[in-house]
Amino acid sequence: MQTAIVNIGQLVTLSGPASPRTGAGLNDLAIIEDAAMLIEHGRITETGKYSELKSKIPPIATIIDAENRCITPGFVDAHTHLVFAGNRAAEFEQRIAGATYQQIAAAGGGILHTVALTRAATEDELLASARRHRDWMLRSGTTTLEVKSGYGLDHETELKMLRVIRRLNDEGPARIVPTLLAAHTVPPEYKDRRADYVRFITYELIPEVATAELAQYCDAFCDDHAFTVDECRTVLTSAKKHGLKLRIHAEQFRSGTGADLAAELSAATADHLETAAEETLQHLRATGTQPVLLPGSVFALSRTQYPPARKMIEAGLAIVLATDFNPGSSPVPSMPFMLSLACLQMGLSPAEALTAATINAAHSLGLGGEIGSLEAGKQAEFVIHEFTDYRELAYFIAAPMRPRVFVKGREVTL
Amino acid sequence: MQTAIVNIGQLVTLSGPASPRTGAGLNDLAIIEDAAMLIEHGRITETGKYSELKSKIPPIATIIDAENRCITPGFVDAHTHLVFAGNRAAEFEQRIAGATYQQIAAAGGGILHTVALTRAATEDELLASARRHRDWMLRSGTTTLEVKSGYGLDHETELKMLRVIRRLNDEGPARIVPTLLAAHTVPPEYKDRRADYVRFITYELIPEVATAELAQYCDAFCDDHAFTVDECRTVLTSAKKHGLKLRIHAEQFRSGTGADLAAELSAATADHLETAAEETLQHLRATGTQPVLLPGSVFALSRTQYPPARKMIEAGLAIVLATDFNPGSSPVPSMPFMLSLACLQMGLSPAEALTAATINAAHSLGLGGEIGSLEAGKQAEFVIHEFTDYRELAYFIAAPMRPRVFVKGREVTL
Repeated sequence: MQTAIVNIGQLVTLSGPASPRTGAGLNDLAIIEDAAMLIEHGRITETGKYSELKSKIPPIATIIDAENRCITPGFVDAHTHLVFAGNRAAEFEQRIAGATYQQIAAAGGGILHTVALTRAATEDELLASARRHRDWMLRSGTTTLEVKSGYGLDHETELKMLRVIRRLNDEGPARIVPTLLAAHTVPPEYKDRRADYVRFITYELIPEVATAELAQYCDAFCDDHAFTVDECRTVLTSAKKHGLKLRIHAEQFRSGTGADLAAELSAATADHLETAAEETLQHLRATGTQPVLLPGSVFALSRTQYPPARKMIEAGLAIVLATDFNPGSSPVPSMPFMLSLACLQMGLSPAEALTAATINAAHSLGLGGEIGSLEAGKQAEFVIHEFTDYRELAYFIAAPMRPRVFVKGREVTL
Repeated sequence: MQTAIVNIGQLVTLSGPASPRTGAGLNDLAIIEDAAMLIEHGRITETGKYSELKSKIPPIATIIDAENRCITPGFVDAHTHLVFAGNRAAEFEQRIAGATYQQIAAAGGGILHTVALTRAATEDELLASARRHRDWMLRSGTTTLEVKSGYGLDHETELKMLRVIRRLNDEGPARIVPTLLAAHTVPPEYKDRRADYVRFITYELIPEVATAELAQYCDAFCDDHAFTVDECRTVLTSAKKHGLKLRIHAEQFRSGTGADLAAELSAATADHLETAAEETLQHLRATGTQPVLLPGSVFALSRTQYPPARKMIEAGLAIVLATDFNPGSSPVPSMPFMLSLACLQMGLSPAEALTAATINAAHSLGLGGEIGSLEAGKQAEFVIHEFTDYRELAYFIAAPMRPRVFVKGREVTL
């Protein structure tokens, strides 16, 4: 069970402090050139210059030749809605033809269309669809991802989604972190009694999900079309009481929708933040809440207001980059494409984007001690890329690269 | 040598008139549901409902089960700079950090950086690099592509590039259409005597390339930083006299740079056109010159002015969509991503974008009778996609799909 990866042209370790990276730390990739990496029982035991490690490679070790290529940690995608039935390609076409989100919703489209299909799907059908999406992510180099419920919006389907997420995690090889997002939107049957839906989540669903350990995080969508700050506070306070950690969809379309609440409740993350004010960024910093930036949804909605990433870095925040993969606002599964968007549209350097997509994302999921960097003691989750310089990740846009992906030291068959 | 593709959920034939599509014709995909396609000696012999073709499948035919998926023609990428040495990932990083194109060029970067590396590379090194890029395109479903010279800018290296393009075509499986682009930029040794460089192209290089049949098209970059309208006229008139067909880089950054010249010379295409005036569109229509839209370069340069595609469609133009794949302004090899950009940024419907990327692109390369649609008599160049509805091509953005790609009826090993 010993493996040596040799002839690594550029080993991007991201090793460093046991905390999320901020400021100049985002650019510190701790690269080793002409490197090797030793692995035992799925964990990294040593990294360093190949010339220095050569003598330490046991004769029985499996040798993998990286052919002078670049190796990075596997991507950690900290915000996805991977489990859903059907897709919304028809709605995509309508939107391009000029239909508004409201018109589409009025015609039965939007989130509620996916909710109807997801409720109708069997657990096995949902799992098959989720595997397909998970495989796209593995092909792109993503080895750990957060997945939310939120297309059920009733007791049975929210639990069904969380069971699918658990099964997906259990079958491997990707590690999946489950999040309850029953507060995604108000379901049609509660249209005229939204307080009842909030009570259902708060007093029934959260206790049951927490007891069954079906979720590690609870999320809520704070927006004019979803839930108010007060409603989100009710839901998330209950979740916190029951031992769930918190994430929140905040300030996507309007300032004042949830980021301050994230700080108030010491949430792990505040996600989106396209419209976040500078003062709010200071509040997030004070509680160590990490911004999760989702440029895929800005791009896929043909919007132009990307989150103010550079201001966040100046404010000392430990930014995270994720896909927001979902069938409506971000049908974009690829983390390398997020790096391209982050560089081209948000002014991040390729190094900052990579840090946000690996070690910082791992910390946002409570996994900063296990994954996200390549250093002794951590799980051997890494990618041998098709190229020699990590900057090519962001530079070659939407390129159909075929990286070699490893989880716990073993190559994933893709 | 007979093959039957069966169980095709959606066969997007694009069959129709033997001319480029305009107006409403761009949306007419001539789709057959529950279809089959018969192939003999690499050519399509029949398409239709599977139930009706079933009895016509010879017992000795090879059967390929499309598993209810969508099939489209292979993409035709009508504008690429696929042959180059090195890459410009470092320059990408500088640009994001705020360096202007001019500053980068002054520091030895930009096109001239690629020219220096391409001159220094051996023919075999260039071929190896070109194969890598060609493979990315095949993986994305591109089966025919145009490739330009233009990183040599001297006698020896321009010919070396064209020989690489010929070898790439000869080895297959992708079909490559060669274009001479010696008028890409003024090389450093001619900095103070640009007229001499234009004379060299006009009187030496073009006759030699035409005689050796190393190019089918001649292109010129008309721009304030490249060649004037008069200089381009001199070059392209010579090319036309020697039997080369014409393409031209026009109106990328400023209106009045070359599109009217394209009409004047009845060029096959005018490429870029981000800044083209409406009057100019009428001139292009009068001569049947096709606009080649290159949204990848707009995106990769973080610019916001996409070509006015809807106005072109209204003007009756037979638009083409291409990647402009190159190491500087468009390191984007994927035609599916061009479809996404065309829909999200230029307001094309998924059907219009697909037509522009297949049959119209084939016509722009003089191959409209051979490829670009799936109908009896044409080469069997097609793609079995991972999905069931062609709209998913544009809808799932930058997704690492793994289509099955066929050229002359045979599956390409990717």
